Amino acid sequence: MSRPPFNPTVVDLSPEQQAREREVYGDLAASVRRLMEASLRTTLDPEEVPGVTAALDALSERLEQDRIDGAYGVSVTRDGRVRAYGNAVVGIRNPVAVPLVIEQDTEQGRAWSSFHFNALYEGPPGYVHGGVLALVLDQIFGEAAAAAGTPGMTGTLTIRYRRPTPLGDCSAAAWVDHTEGIKTTVKGELRDAEDQVTVEAEGLFILPRWAREAIAEGGQRPIRFE
Amino acid sequence: MSRPPFNPTVVDLSPEQQAREREVYGDLAASVRRLMEASLRTTLDPEEVPGVTAALDALSERLEQDRIDGAYGVSVTRDGRVRAYGNAVVGIRNPVAVPLVIEQDTEQGRAWSSFHFNALYEGPPGYVHGGVLALVLDQIFGEAAAAAGTPGMTGTLTIRYRRPTPLGDCSAAAWVDHTEGIKTTVKGELRDAEDQVTVEAEGLFILPRWAREAIAEGGQRPIRFE
Repeated sequence: MSRPPFNPTVVDLSPEQQAREREVYGDLAASVRRLMEASLRTTLDPEEVPGVTAALDALSERLEQDRIDGAYGVSVTRDGRVRAYGNAVVGIRNPVAVPLVIEQDTEQGRAWSSFHFNALYEGPPGYVHGGVLALVLDQIFGEAAAAAGTPGMTGTLTIRYRRPTPLGDCSAAAWVDHTEGIKTTVKGELRDAEDQVTVEAEGLFILPRWAREAIAEGGQRPIRFE
Repeated sequence: MSRPPFNPTVVDLSPEQQAREREVYGDLAASVRRLMEASLRTTLDPEEVPGVTAALDALSERLEQDRIDGAYGVSVTRDGRVRAYGNAVVGIRNPVAVPLVIEQDTEQGRAWSSFHFNALYEGPPGYVHGGVLALVLDQIFGEAAAAAGTPGMTGTLTIRYRRPTPLGDCSAAAWVDHTEGIKTTVKGELRDAEDQVTVEAEGLFILPRWAREAIAEGGQRPIRFE
């Protein structure tokens, strides 16, 4: 397992500017998410759809006039916040993301979240796609490992599907089961709106060398995402 | 493991109408995907963003005037095609989906696909989110089991991350390793643009009772998605 050093862009904005950015671009992503669901569920007359498509392309062109190269990546603020705005699960600027707001307990090495799966996350008719459940669990598991002060990359993830998960409200929790050297074992589960466990999972997280070196230099501390 | 019987809506459209629907709504979803990436990567002046957001909301309202209740589900055509248009991985109408076009070999019980992960699928900076890799593998694995004539729901999925997967072109393949009664074991892997294996996985697929009954009544046949 290899990965380049974590050299994020440092963002030099005042707290007010940061708050304004979160609001403006967060609202934009929220509107895009609404549009995504609307476009999936619409039964608008096929003759009228191309007009909407053309209007969307015009708005994309406007947004594309000024943009970053490549992917969003991760930036950090001067006050030490990690802005994973582009993350596919928690990124407030990423429309693919639900997005999840994940809580962390650093003393217990635990992370959890409640969220809603709408029509965009469907697999079997009326149910959440099994792979989507793996997607959110992977993120929550990683944040549990980070909360415990042993952040790592996912080495192995085993997902056991106990029963289908209906679309709608869900919750998930993950906790560090044990740590052995650079390997942290995380366990967790996902529950449906009836609070029934629908998925159980276990993950092995491995601390890459670059992170071990950073910890040796600067002391161990959990990574906090916003 | 339980699931209601597979009672999809039957779509009564001529082949020409079906083709027109695929084109019009497929184009809409493609434009929404472009907008999603544009909204994530844009550095448009925060003062100008609310205007774009308002324009998007107006388009959502138009699409929402006429829509299906709840999630998209699955429909079948009179000529036996399964339209999983809302699926989170392969649904041509679902903007969350890449979407993957998955090939199947029914003689070998094999499924494979090539696809491109853009900025929307990011986890670690510059790399595909580990959970996104699990998401696409789950779908390809299920289609390998279906190709072999032993469709099933995912029981267990184990993902081994061998190295980080850079954003960009990727490919994945899955094949039935063996079948034991109602349990089918599928193995597979994902490769990056350099054709290096970055992820290996194994899945256990279980044929639910409703499907066993359907097969007993009507004979076994692979499910073909479009």
